[in-house]
Amino acid sequence: MSKTNILYQHGTLALLVPGLLDGTITMKELLEHGDTGIGTGEGLDGELIILDGTPYQVDSTGKVNIVSDDFTLPFANSHFGNYQQLTEVKDLSQSDLNKKLLTMTSSNTFFSTQIHGTFTNIKTRAVKKSQKPYATLSKTAEDQSVFQRDSITGTLLSYYSPMIFDGAGVGGFHHHFLSDDHTFGGHVLSFDGATGDVKLQQFDTLEQHLPTQNTDYMKFDFSDWDILGDIHKAES
Amino acid sequence: MSKTNILYQHGTLALLVPGLLDGTITMKELLEHGDTGIGTGEGLDGELIILDGTPYQVDSTGKVNIVSDDFTLPFANSHFGNYQQLTEVKDLSQSDLNKKLLTMTSSNTFFSTQIHGTFTNIKTRAVKKSQKPYATLSKTAEDQSVFQRDSITGTLLSYYSPMIFDGAGVGGFHHHFLSDDHTFGGHVLSFDGATGDVKLQQFDTLEQHLPTQNTDYMKFDFSDWDILGDIHKAES
Repeated sequence: MSKTNILYQHGTLALLVPGLLDGTITMKELLEHGDTGIGTGEGLDGELIILDGTPYQVDSTGKVNIVSDDFTLPFANSHFGNYQQLTEVKDLSQSDLNKKLLTMTSSNTFFSTQIHGTFTNIKTRAVKKSQKPYATLSKTAEDQSVFQRDSITGTLLSYYSPMIFDGAGVGGFHHHFLSDDHTFGGHVLSFDGATGDVKLQQFDTLEQHLPTQNTDYMKFDFSDWDILGDIHKAES
Repeated sequence: MSKTNILYQHGTLALLVPGLLDGTITMKELLEHGDTGIGTGEGLDGELIILDGTPYQVDSTGKVNIVSDDFTLPFANSHFGNYQQLTEVKDLSQSDLNKKLLTMTSSNTFFSTQIHGTFTNIKTRAVKKSQKPYATLSKTAEDQSVFQRDSITGTLLSYYSPMIFDGAGVGGFHHHFLSDDHTFGGHVLSFDGATGDVKLQQFDTLEQHLPTQNTDYMKFDFSDWDILGDIHKAES
């Protein structure tokens, strides 16, 4: 039975900061917890988006690939899609859309939205896979590829986490995108002019799974790191 | 099947800060997620400790009561006990014990310890139940009852949460105590001279459940509150 009230998370955003980038869950395992999701590959190998059970990767060249069951990830979210129609929007900016969503739901629980529609502009990024010893998140973010498209049609998949969970996940909104023609996507840095259907799925449970089999993670001393500071620099 | 790798949490520590103290889970429901646990009652009605499936409440007079299935709680943890013998300790201070535990396990995942033994001194507190409109955590903490015992034998039940989850739960150690003779217990403010068996149970999953059916919680605006500041004042 799929549990549509549960958002599954493997790893934390925090572990990306010092570069604990071993892939600690396979795509096959992640898909057991949902048919919809986002994540990144081992060594920050691109930006992942799972739609209707199919896992797409946007790599650092901007190419969209379907990844195999044995593809591994250090950090990912997934859930079983059971979205409800929320509203239609027309030519909304990113900040106006975020505000509108938060007036129509609650910022005190986890939720996901999907907008299928057109956007006047979207800017995305995808990171180039690094090899072990992995670079830190701030170092990796310097090497990211940034892509931009105007008048693009596709699916914006977003997760919202209450601010008290910032650091475990991305506090606030976290958006990934895939164009309908599968030629463009990634982690969304910004978008504008959203026109389309907005669907909402609210969760009452976060199932937070940690990579306790990974010695590098379990032995790491986070106490000297400005985890939230580095996250906010890299994820914006 | 009991899932001994899962720590269940209902509510967040953060929601206690502004006084969102409605009981949003029953003890019966909480016990479906474990036979071991801690929590507080509606309106901060005492300090709870669940041992071997029996839920004990230390009320604001210091009395130990067994609560019924319909007792409700705003914030609680539970899990199915499957502890492994870790070590024996003799006359250890609280800080030395905490340090010893962290060298023997990892601070990057959730775990629980149980120490059954004697303590040269334990100081506990229990809060008096407040009625709606509930007081804030800092206001309630001013009215707490503090109890103290020397040479006391009993069970110290502790949960450890990685610091990145501070605010969702209690980052670091969170201890509740019940004496063997059921005349003393509560939320532990401090202890000293611990002598006894230490058992450890490590989790790889936090199942974080939020009170999404509670309108006061869902509509609350946390943005003006210094959640972590108030927590650290009240929970130490």
